[in-house]
Amino acid sequence: MNIGFIGLGIMGSRMAANLQKAGHNLVVYNRTAQKAEALVAKGATLASTPEEVGKQCRVIFTMLATPDAVEEAALGQHGFLKEMPGNSLWIDSSTVNPSFSVRMAKAAQKMGHRFLDAPVSGSLKPAETGQLVFLVGGAAQDLQEVRPLLDAMGKDVLHIGDHGQGSSMKIVNNMLFGQIMGAFAEALKLGTSLGITEETLCQTLLNGPGGAPFLKLKQEKLLTRDFSPEFPLEWLHKDLHLAGVTAYEQGIALPTLHTVKEVFAMAKQAGLGEQDFSAVYDFINPTK
Amino acid sequence: MNIGFIGLGIMGSRMAANLQKAGHNLVVYNRTAQKAEALVAKGATLASTPEEVGKQCRVIFTMLATPDAVEEAALGQHGFLKEMPGNSLWIDSSTVNPSFSVRMAKAAQKMGHRFLDAPVSGSLKPAETGQLVFLVGGAAQDLQEVRPLLDAMGKDVLHIGDHGQGSSMKIVNNMLFGQIMGAFAEALKLGTSLGITEETLCQTLLNGPGGAPFLKLKQEKLLTRDFSPEFPLEWLHKDLHLAGVTAYEQGIALPTLHTVKEVFAMAKQAGLGEQDFSAVYDFINPTK
Amino acid sequence: MNIGFIGLGIMGSRMAANLQKAGHNLVVYNRTAQKAEALVAKGATLASTPEEVGKQCRVIFTMLATPDAVEEAALGQHGFLKEMPGNSLWIDSSTVNPSFSVRMAKAAQKMGHRFLDAPVSGSLKPAETGQLVFLVGGAAQDLQEVRPLLDAMGKDVLHIGDHGQGSSMKIVNNMLFGQIMGAFAEALKLGTSLGITEETLCQTLLNGPGGAPFLKLKQEKLLTRDFSPEFPLEWLHKDLHLAGVTAYEQGIALPTLHTVKEVFAMAKQAGLGEQDFSAVYDFINPTK
Amino acid sequence: MNIGFIGLGIMGSRMAANLQKAGHNLVVYNRTAQKAEALVAKGATLASTPEEVGKQCRVIFTMLATPDAVEEAALGQHGFLKEMPGNSLWIDSSTVNPSFSVRMAKAAQKMGHRFLDAPVSGSLKPAETGQLVFLVGGAAQDLQEVRPLLDAMGKDVLHIGDHGQGSSMKIVNNMLFGQIMGAFAEALKLGTSLGITEETLCQTLLNGPGGAPFLKLKQEKLLTRDFSPEFPLEWLHKDLHLAGVTAYEQGIALPTLHTVKEVFAMAKQAGLGEQDFSAVYDFINPTK
Repeated sequence: MNIGFIGLGIMGSRMAANLQKAGHNLVVYNRTAQKAEALVAKGATLASTPEEVGKQCRVIFTMLATPDAVEEAALGQHGFLKEMPGNSLWIDSSTVNPSFSVRMAKAAQKMGHRFLDAPVSGSLKPAETGQLVFLVGGAAQDLQEVRPLLDAMGKDVLHIGDHGQGSSMKIVNNMLFGQIMGAFAEALKLGTSLGITEETLCQTLLNGPGGAPFLKLKQEKLLTRDFSPEFPLEWLHKDLHLAGVTAYEQGIALPTLHTVKEVFAMAKQAGLGEQDFSAVYDFINPTK
Repeated sequence: MNIGFIGLGIMGSRMAANLQKAGHNLVVYNRTAQKAEALVAKGATLASTPEEVGKQCRVIFTMLATPDAVEEAALGQHGFLKEMPGNSLWIDSSTVNPSFSVRMAKAAQKMGHRFLDAPVSGSLKPAETGQLVFLVGGAAQDLQEVRPLLDAMGKDVLHIGDHGQGSSMKIVNNMLFGQIMGAFAEALKLGTSLGITEETLCQTLLNGPGGAPFLKLKQEKLLTRDFSPEFPLEWLHKDLHLAGVTAYEQGIALPTLHTVKEVFAMAKQAGLGEQDFSAVYDFINPTK
Repeated sequence: MNIGFIGLGIMGSRMAANLQKAGHNLVVYNRTAQKAEALVAKGATLASTPEEVGKQCRVIFTMLATPDAVEEAALGQHGFLKEMPGNSLWIDSSTVNPSFSVRMAKAAQKMGHRFLDAPVSGSLKPAETGQLVFLVGGAAQDLQEVRPLLDAMGKDVLHIGDHGQGSSMKIVNNMLFGQIMGAFAEALKLGTSLGITEETLCQTLLNGPGGAPFLKLKQEKLLTRDFSPEFPLEWLHKDLHLAGVTAYEQGIALPTLHTVKEVFAMAKQAGLGEQDFSAVYDFINPTK
Repeated sequence: MNIGFIGLGIMGSRMAANLQKAGHNLVVYNRTAQKAEALVAKGATLASTPEEVGKQCRVIFTMLATPDAVEEAALGQHGFLKEMPGNSLWIDSSTVNPSFSVRMAKAAQKMGHRFLDAPVSGSLKPAETGQLVFLVGGAAQDLQEVRPLLDAMGKDVLHIGDHGQGSSMKIVNNMLFGQIMGAFAEALKLGTSLGITEETLCQTLLNGPGGAPFLKLKQEKLLTRDFSPEFPLEWLHKDLHLAGVTAYEQGIALPTLHTVKEVFAMAKQAGLGEQDFSAVYDFINPTK
């Protein structure tokens, strides 16, 4: 059986490679074809459009940067959905807003297909080593059907609930990351302004009750100011934006989220968008 | 040797009890004398003013609610500093702003005494069980002198730096707590609005990379909505305020801190000030 | 010549009535047909779908609540654009985000038609008395062609620039309103908490250099707490949301806008959405 | 009768000059004595300390930059209060927090004197031309006694209420200014990012219902980017800080104020503190 994989960026290329390693035949598509070369060299078929992927696969994964890109690939002029054999299964691992996932689920169903939103927790390294955590929304039996594929790419699969709830959990998760990262950056800013070293602050705070595990992983980046991207700041900013839009759709207020979002927007404006999202610290507390 | 202890609230009463257990003779003072009864029953001397404490002790601890209360006790009309024998040592464990600690250190020195700012990390239970962490600012040899006393009340003593830096670390620490607590409350709000249960959200988020240790300790409070105070919301709000004032004094901007501070201010306005600070969740996501 | 008018809510019904008074034959459509009764009684033709309006008109106005509603009316299954005679002119007076206006302009052009975004400044009363101000984006000659129609509904027509810039100016305008309204509400909150009466505060502040003209119009509402809607709070909240989304699209940060937006979101959560937007004061400074 | 005047900065020097023009003998003090030269050349007596002013005057004005500076001048080692003849009258025109004014009123009364808080609305030019507006807190008969002096410096005198309420109104007033200025800067930022010129934005917005009078006065500064100070940004930032501290003292939440405050803090951090406060626009929307 062929497995389709659309979107071969930082994350997608590594996830697809793990599927390939597990013995699956891949049909891949990426806007920039050269990103597919490594996969093709190991036997993957390169499609020239999403539509061509659709013709050859009953299971397709998408891992794209924005809801618009996902919609184009699935439902656009050369979209894959209309070409897939009846009752196929589309798994969207992109980080999108929950209402978008629900809309895609309906669009798939209307065309006789099945859908799972299955975004992942974890960035570059876990993608490479197959240690991602999948947060899945949709029918339990659909999940069961593709569970071996997810296991090839991740260490854990959490079935959160119905269509959209995988995306919901992902957005909530990344919103929490953004807020904690921003908070930690402000804590270091205040502490260093008072004459405490970054080292002492990190050691004290990260070994204390506020030391969230991912902050410990970012510590070296902060101390060395090497913000090479694991998860780019502009992506986190996008996720905070999707969280804000979702809050609006739900009719709820999230004041602090919105302020943090604007701090990340300022960091992006200042040119840090392609750095790791921990570079928000470089915006809040620049070295002179 | 007598040890003075001024301020017998939730924290102070338990800290003093641990000093007493370790065999020290205490001279204690509290505005409401009855809070001293348990200590007096076990041999502590009750003073009628801070001044009376000053006359009997070369080492005095203060554990009071606000900078104003500390200043009144030390330097007011019946303050203890002017009565202490030359070269005495005052340890202020109250949570105050760093510039206040620096001012107190200077006032003490001017009167021939020594000063340590030594606020604590940890709330009710660690205070009771002697598991506090002291964050100390001041001279290393002064700290060495009273180290056995701190060890009787805490499990760890961190010498952060010069006068004021104990308070600096404490403020930075509590600011981080407040921001993470507020962030987690917003995350649960967004998640539940999207139909995910509080249990699933807590389990997923707290076992993930954003799961700060203290959030795990608050989980039961959140799920049961029993916000009996370990660390009252109005105190955390005060600490966020002190962080804001300190940022102003340092000439730095901390946008997110200020928004979180106002969320806690709204929670306090809504009548939650005496609840645990995790009750900010009850403000953000009330049960109807 | 027939003029089409789609959307007969608080604003649209009054604008259409002024076109009718000026002697124009109207073909109208509204989801709830009974809102068209007064116009029909005076000679307007009631269409059963937007499509039916399209068949009978070379000029169509839309005045709808959300971008989605506009898109449905113009481009949906029963949309009017595909039915209009070649080279027709569609004027959208709805308040929408600028990128949406640009997208609609392109959609119209692709189908051989012309487009103006022409949202209005002014609420219920100016709509009724023909005192609106049109903020127009699009080609000057298209504007010239329908200028007499706009003059029948408004006192002023400002040609801001190209497609989308009418909507841009409108969003900027309403964002300024929302921020000033929120600021004034906070000013009254602080002043009354300090014991100054609302009357003294209004008199002093509104006659001073910060007294924006629209605040003077809201003064009576604030003092009497009669927040019957001229411009509903939930609509202003929507506009602040569109401003936020537009800022994201433009890659810029607007921190204060986002905080005000969340204050309005909280007011809406508290049940004030259908009140006048000045009711944000009732949220910030409730009478007990 | 001698009139004392302490604090001869941008505002104080011009206010004192108007008193002098009205025929009053002045005894003046300023930390930097040379700022008194113009006044001395026209007959004023230069005192070497506040205390020396106190010895020669029954009425003293203070116009200083911070609460600390006021307290030092009045109650410090060389303070004037203790030297004034019994039942003297001290008028503090500095912008301070209300609780500070109340404390100064009590300190004066305790020493047998009377006090008015009488901060002014208006900056450099109104100070020069005697067009200030005094916002007065204190006893009506005390105000009546010095009314001719205030009339020599201002065009209007508003008796707001009891001690502290002059300061309250001033803080509320400046808080409103800061928020409207910040809002307008963000409006211009969004508008220009969408391709509308600053000129069109200013013309449309300032002639519309949101056009607060003081914004019109700032228009030229914004369009020419000449931010020579009329009212320095760092002073407005200080006033926003005092408003925030006052809100904390009053137990109320003002979320938007705090976000604007931090935007001004960032502008100050960026080196704009000594520019006019309208330079917040230069921070939000820098020319590249």
